[in-house]
Amino acid sequence: MTELKIAAEIVDGENEKRASAHHADYEALGTNLARRDIDIEAITAQVSKFFVAVPSWGVGTGGTRFARFPGKGEPRGIFDKLDDCAVINQLTAATPNVSLHIPWDSQDPKMLKAHADALGLGFDAMNSNTFSDAEGQQHSYKYGSLSHADAATRQQAVDHNIECIEIGNALGSKALTVWVGDGSNFPGQSNFTKSFERYLSAMAEIYKALPDDWRIFSEHKMYEPAFYSTVVQDWGTNYLIANTLGEKAFCLVDLGHHAPNTNIEMIVARLIQFGKLGGFHFNDSKYGDDDLDAGSIDPYRLFLVFNELVDADHRGVKDFHPAHMIDQSHNVTDPIESLISSANEIRRSYAQALLVDRTALDGFQQENDALMASDTLKRAYRTDVEPILAEARRRSSGALDPIATYRASGYRAKVAAERPESRSGSGGII
Amino acid sequence: MTELKIAAEIVDGENEKRASAHHADYEALGTNLARRDIDIEAITAQVSKFFVAVPSWGVGTGGTRFARFPGKGEPRGIFDKLDDCAVINQLTAATPNVSLHIPWDSQDPKMLKAHADALGLGFDAMNSNTFSDAEGQQHSYKYGSLSHADAATRQQAVDHNIECIEIGNALGSKALTVWVGDGSNFPGQSNFTKSFERYLSAMAEIYKALPDDWRIFSEHKMYEPAFYSTVVQDWGTNYLIANTLGEKAFCLVDLGHHAPNTNIEMIVARLIQFGKLGGFHFNDSKYGDDDLDAGSIDPYRLFLVFNELVDADHRGVKDFHPAHMIDQSHNVTDPIESLISSANEIRRSYAQALLVDRTALDGFQQENDALMASDTLKRAYRTDVEPILAEARRRSSGALDPIATYRASGYRAKVAAERPESRSGSGGII
Amino acid sequence: MTELKIAAEIVDGENEKRASAHHADYEALGTNLARRDIDIEAITAQVSKFFVAVPSWGVGTGGTRFARFPGKGEPRGIFDKLDDCAVINQLTAATPNVSLHIPWDSQDPKMLKAHADALGLGFDAMNSNTFSDAEGQQHSYKYGSLSHADAATRQQAVDHNIECIEIGNALGSKALTVWVGDGSNFPGQSNFTKSFERYLSAMAEIYKALPDDWRIFSEHKMYEPAFYSTVVQDWGTNYLIANTLGEKAFCLVDLGHHAPNTNIEMIVARLIQFGKLGGFHFNDSKYGDDDLDAGSIDPYRLFLVFNELVDADHRGVKDFHPAHMIDQSHNVTDPIESLISSANEIRRSYAQALLVDRTALDGFQQENDALMASDTLKRAYRTDVEPILAEARRRSSGALDPIATYRASGYRAKVAAERPESRSGSGGII
Amino acid sequence: MTELKIAAEIVDGENEKRASAHHADYEALGTNLARRDIDIEAITAQVSKFFVAVPSWGVGTGGTRFARFPGKGEPRGIFDKLDDCAVINQLTAATPNVSLHIPWDSQDPKMLKAHADALGLGFDAMNSNTFSDAEGQQHSYKYGSLSHADAATRQQAVDHNIECIEIGNALGSKALTVWVGDGSNFPGQSNFTKSFERYLSAMAEIYKALPDDWRIFSEHKMYEPAFYSTVVQDWGTNYLIANTLGEKAFCLVDLGHHAPNTNIEMIVARLIQFGKLGGFHFNDSKYGDDDLDAGSIDPYRLFLVFNELVDADHRGVKDFHPAHMIDQSHNVTDPIESLISSANEIRRSYAQALLVDRTALDGFQQENDALMASDTLKRAYRTDVEPILAEARRRSSGALDPIATYRASGYRAKVAAERPESRSGSGGII
Repeated sequence: MTELKIAAEIVDGENEKRASAHHADYEALGTNLARRDIDIEAITAQVSKFFVAVPSWGVGTGGTRFARFPGKGEPRGIFDKLDDCAVINQLTAATPNVSLHIPWDSQDPKMLKAHADALGLGFDAMNSNTFSDAEGQQHSYKYGSLSHADAATRQQAVDHNIECIEIGNALGSKALTVWVGDGSNFPGQSNFTKSFERYLSAMAEIYKALPDDWRIFSEHKMYEPAFYSTVVQDWGTNYLIANTLGEKAFCLVDLGHHAPNTNIEMIVARLIQFGKLGGFHFNDSKYGDDDLDAGSIDPYRLFLVFNELVDADHRGVKDFHPAHMIDQSHNVTDPIESLISSANEIRRSYAQALLVDRTALDGFQQENDALMASDTLKRAYRTDVEPILAEARRRSSGALDPIATYRASGYRAKVAAERPESRSGSGGII
Repeated sequence: MTELKIAAEIVDGENEKRASAHHADYEALGTNLARRDIDIEAITAQVSKFFVAVPSWGVGTGGTRFARFPGKGEPRGIFDKLDDCAVINQLTAATPNVSLHIPWDSQDPKMLKAHADALGLGFDAMNSNTFSDAEGQQHSYKYGSLSHADAATRQQAVDHNIECIEIGNALGSKALTVWVGDGSNFPGQSNFTKSFERYLSAMAEIYKALPDDWRIFSEHKMYEPAFYSTVVQDWGTNYLIANTLGEKAFCLVDLGHHAPNTNIEMIVARLIQFGKLGGFHFNDSKYGDDDLDAGSIDPYRLFLVFNELVDADHRGVKDFHPAHMIDQSHNVTDPIESLISSANEIRRSYAQALLVDRTALDGFQQENDALMASDTLKRAYRTDVEPILAEARRRSSGALDPIATYRASGYRAKVAAERPESRSGSGGII
Repeated sequence: MTELKIAAEIVDGENEKRASAHHADYEALGTNLARRDIDIEAITAQVSKFFVAVPSWGVGTGGTRFARFPGKGEPRGIFDKLDDCAVINQLTAATPNVSLHIPWDSQDPKMLKAHADALGLGFDAMNSNTFSDAEGQQHSYKYGSLSHADAATRQQAVDHNIECIEIGNALGSKALTVWVGDGSNFPGQSNFTKSFERYLSAMAEIYKALPDDWRIFSEHKMYEPAFYSTVVQDWGTNYLIANTLGEKAFCLVDLGHHAPNTNIEMIVARLIQFGKLGGFHFNDSKYGDDDLDAGSIDPYRLFLVFNELVDADHRGVKDFHPAHMIDQSHNVTDPIESLISSANEIRRSYAQALLVDRTALDGFQQENDALMASDTLKRAYRTDVEPILAEARRRSSGALDPIATYRASGYRAKVAAERPESRSGSGGII
Repeated sequence: MTELKIAAEIVDGENEKRASAHHADYEALGTNLARRDIDIEAITAQVSKFFVAVPSWGVGTGGTRFARFPGKGEPRGIFDKLDDCAVINQLTAATPNVSLHIPWDSQDPKMLKAHADALGLGFDAMNSNTFSDAEGQQHSYKYGSLSHADAATRQQAVDHNIECIEIGNALGSKALTVWVGDGSNFPGQSNFTKSFERYLSAMAEIYKALPDDWRIFSEHKMYEPAFYSTVVQDWGTNYLIANTLGEKAFCLVDLGHHAPNTNIEMIVARLIQFGKLGGFHFNDSKYGDDDLDAGSIDPYRLFLVFNELVDADHRGVKDFHPAHMIDQSHNVTDPIESLISSANEIRRSYAQALLVDRTALDGFQQENDALMASDTLKRAYRTDVEPILAEARRRSSGALDPIATYRASGYRAKVAAERPESRSGSGGII
């Protein structure tokens, strides 16, 4: 039996308070949708089966190069992190899997698995780290990792990635996400072509170590930590990687890793069309890789991404099962609350995308009726699907109002009492 | 014998005035370069053989959607345009080829060729136009051309491109540049995947009509005239096109067609590495597709692009012969002057890139000596190579100071007297 | 009695079809809002009194520098334009005023006023045009207008603006909007300081001619038609203008005139705080001054702008009555439909902003409860207020579904039969 | 007598090796400039008197939120930092002043002054730090400092700034630079107006404590560490601050703190025109606040900024003495080398700007001769002024080639032996 970090009675009690209003809203929405020939029950069922992985590093307070301001009850290590993840999943019923970061989360795989099992959690994609130097590491990644000019440094990075696969294999993970910060800060610092050749060659080594039922996700990012050039800078380069490596290689799209004004949903469509969309790191951003909460800045953009995913399903794209993961930095909120909220926002976009009348849309597109095509999307988008999301949670023993329930549970105060205070720190700047 | 639009005596006379200062500067630079183990004569020889095509549409005054303010002596048609192009080539000795735009430049190919021959000009890549409706055209391109939802409209666009190939074939051109404005202004207006499938299918038709010794260049652009999505929006999509079509298909890079902050020189490197760089539309920009004069806004960026081209030569990349073309809109200058100046700036970047000490650079890159690697580029870049450029022009009967010589020639006043005044106009806005 | 361009029976008939569903939705929403202590009737009443002006130039099909693709039944002049505007107002009950552009709309003021009166329309801010040359104009604006180096050209631009005030005065307008495209395409082309001094001096002349009860709005824009520098490039410069001119001078904010990533709602807040917000040109954009339909790209941003306006009202800001205007370019839709839709989207954002629980929000802000503060805005934003908007229209004799009603009316076909076909054109490019 | 961190003989020896080549280059340049009616000696004299302050924090290796990779011989504290700064000044003769950051550099002012005096260094603007929490600080800046909702936190921030003034006063500084990271990560998190009112009120307190002969510089930044809104987000807000505070308040412009595509030189011109340009934080950037070495990415932009400064001098702007400071983060280079190089690049831009023929430029601007105006700037810019810079250094006992001389000196190895190794670290992310 799953160990609950929040007593079931608390959840039930909070749900009870909101039951009647929720019931009324769900019914009203059902009536409205029925008029649009949509069966609310079908939507609720689909939403219930939609899951997104949470990142282990997301439950700790993030920071910038200027400072980190920790909150209360920061997790001391991966076991605490799993506990926090369990809270998120209990209340949202949307996040049964956790994505680990090695070596941050390095622990005996058996203990990890046992701890996760007890909490009803599984493991999503593994993440390697070659963008910072681990204590005692022989070769520094200051000037790169998989693309480093020095062969020994590259080998060390390859070995680390292979180790991540092995750990993941023991945990039941089925994918490796590779994000490298490799790049340069000055024109001339690195030769673009040679660097990329080295990167591809190192990735081919990792690819060889991939079990048959695994996938490898390469992740592009325009800039940061490198500020003039980045080896895997955009989806074009990312596609070349996946295409060069082989059929188990796919591209990961982080919503915050693009140039200003980029039409991200179009990139999603292209990668689907060419069979290389691996999955997502969901978050939101206004300026760069801001790692803000999903849907907090531009919720329509998130909807448009999901519109592509649902459209691909609708068109019957084969072998299409992108990985959904959150990747955010929570600098000013309780990370558990932000992850609860983000999981909800992601499901919201999914639910709204399910409401799009695709037959009508297709007709408007054929007739170049731009206004009605736009309106068809907007009509789905502006539907307040919160009752569906709440109902999906309720039916899976989650909370009608997960944030309020979390606050009512006193979980943060409890762990704050158990876990020592984390030190405030300045960031990388000094 | 080539017909000269500016009397040789005028050029000679202007050169004479500047001969002694030029001689001194060239000698001083030669001494300085010799100290850096660079033979100025070798550089001058290489620069002399570097050419860039001018666009026929560039010799007319451009405009914006708000207005067009014509200058004096605007060319009345392609024959006038060729005359103007001949002036540019006479003074710069850098622009022997002209790139035509159909149907704007549609004329009897024999007459075109005869006129060009007399002026000592040849023809570079042909450009089709499916971003505006020609008079009497059956199907409108309002909602797209090669990707249009309607098959007949697509066929019309395919036929037009094939006609461009035929005209070009008669003129001695060896390439077709395809830029389409196809896209959408509203989320939902078009289905990204279906549009791109239609585009690829139409391009395959055009590709089939391509003579064996021709190349086809597809050109990407982030936005404008479509303002939400564009079918060929970036180099990632452009690469997919060239890769799908076949070995005669290549990507064209216009320097102003990218997202803000994009590292363009890196895209150039990637396309070279994967054998798909077709060539360039040179210009400069600060905000979007501003089509400003090459090197006028960010000359170091232009140098960095040429650094990649020279580096590829240095590394002995096979079958590497990108097309060099200018694509600018001259709204506030005499277009002839802007094209003279731009051809010069492009050669300047090339000459500077030739000065880079690549052996030293390679060493610094191997040792991660970022500062000295950067300095190696900057050292070449800050060399004032104007004496080399001037000498290359002089040796090919061009002008030491082409702008001053052009002004002294009175060419603009002469054609202004012959050509009727062009009407001012508001742009597309009304 | 107001002349109706669409027969009342058509509107009534269309409304009748949707009456029962509308009634159910309005009631359900009322119940939901009542639970949140919001009186739906109060909101509906406020929305009913919210108006936005339509631009006379918006009812014609727009274009880009590449092409313009006209639609059917394009208005032949200002009288046709007023007819089209009347249709928009009849169906939306949200756009009783029209903003004119001189000299495009130059006609005998008495006839204009009589025509507008008959249609139940009034006149909003006047717009001058010094970004293109009118036929027969003595001095060209190729190199600027109010900031031109030549005094006579500046005087001509000043005189034109004063003429706009005079026309507006005769029409009952109370404001002049001044947008100039003045700027430069090359570093060095103009002296930033001298240009701005000349601009300020010319604006002071216009300001002097302003009637006591008028306001003057200066409008900033980052770029286009000038592509290196623009004299009134951002809100900082715009504030300096308004502050220098005097208390009748205010800043106009066009949502598409900012640098990428700009937080526009914050600029709105600053201008309110310093008493200089004059009003808006509403539209939406993804890349630059795309002039897309309001709320079509980033509806949450539009909501956040209205959140500032409602917050200012809530805080009791004195003398706060910003002008609301639409400024869009309709390239691929029926302009009447786009304007109907945009007026609706603008009211939608206003209605959503009215739903924000400002007492709760203030509390969360005081306690730095970022998550709940964000959620407070999102809760209001995700409310589907369409029933309120529809009810507000219905009560003012507008249409429950204005687009469907417009299509059912056959208005476009009717005017297409009366008005000659407009010629397709290439834009400013050639 | 000034204590030299590098033996004079080493500098002399290195200079000797390069003397003859330098002499030839200087002479050749002198001849070329003489032909342009420019006296090289006058330029060299002006360059010799141009200084830029180095930031104490700049001599340590920087980092990102992902990681910090320290170099060898990292300074242990402010005394080591001053030693490193002395090396920079000795070799460049361009950086006699150091800008301190409190509390990072907090030490007994008398000892600081004595140490600096011995090294021949002075103190430039003081910098306060309210963007990170100092050890033992009572109130956290997690949710802001000068604009914090809580009065006690604001007071603490005010007190800290006043303490910075007091320390600076003891050291001979004459200015305080205030940069705050205050802002929000979520729409709704803070009320823009109330936050800014609190900020202005807190700044007024600090302003009151300013000695008569001091200036206060407020510094704007678009984003980071706050990722949705920033209280002092752009020059518009910055101007409002300086204008509200009084005549000792000025705006500081950091070249990397702007929106993409911003025309920074124009902002510089505006602030000069309205008497509020306080000074600069020089650096370069490609994406955001990259803090790269000055002139390494877009050297022409740096030149254009200096073109405004020299133009202001040329126009005789009164009371114009902006502060010149470097603010960079050196992640992959030896910080001493980067600062040497940057000081040189800044002087290079200044020297090039001095070469602009301003009489000719003014004429071209009057005549709207955009091409020649642009060419006038480019002609100055493309002059290789390195011989002037080298000569200016040489005459002040600096190095002809400061980087080579620094490397030859063995300074880094020497301090690496004395100073303990700094720990690698991950950045703010965990």
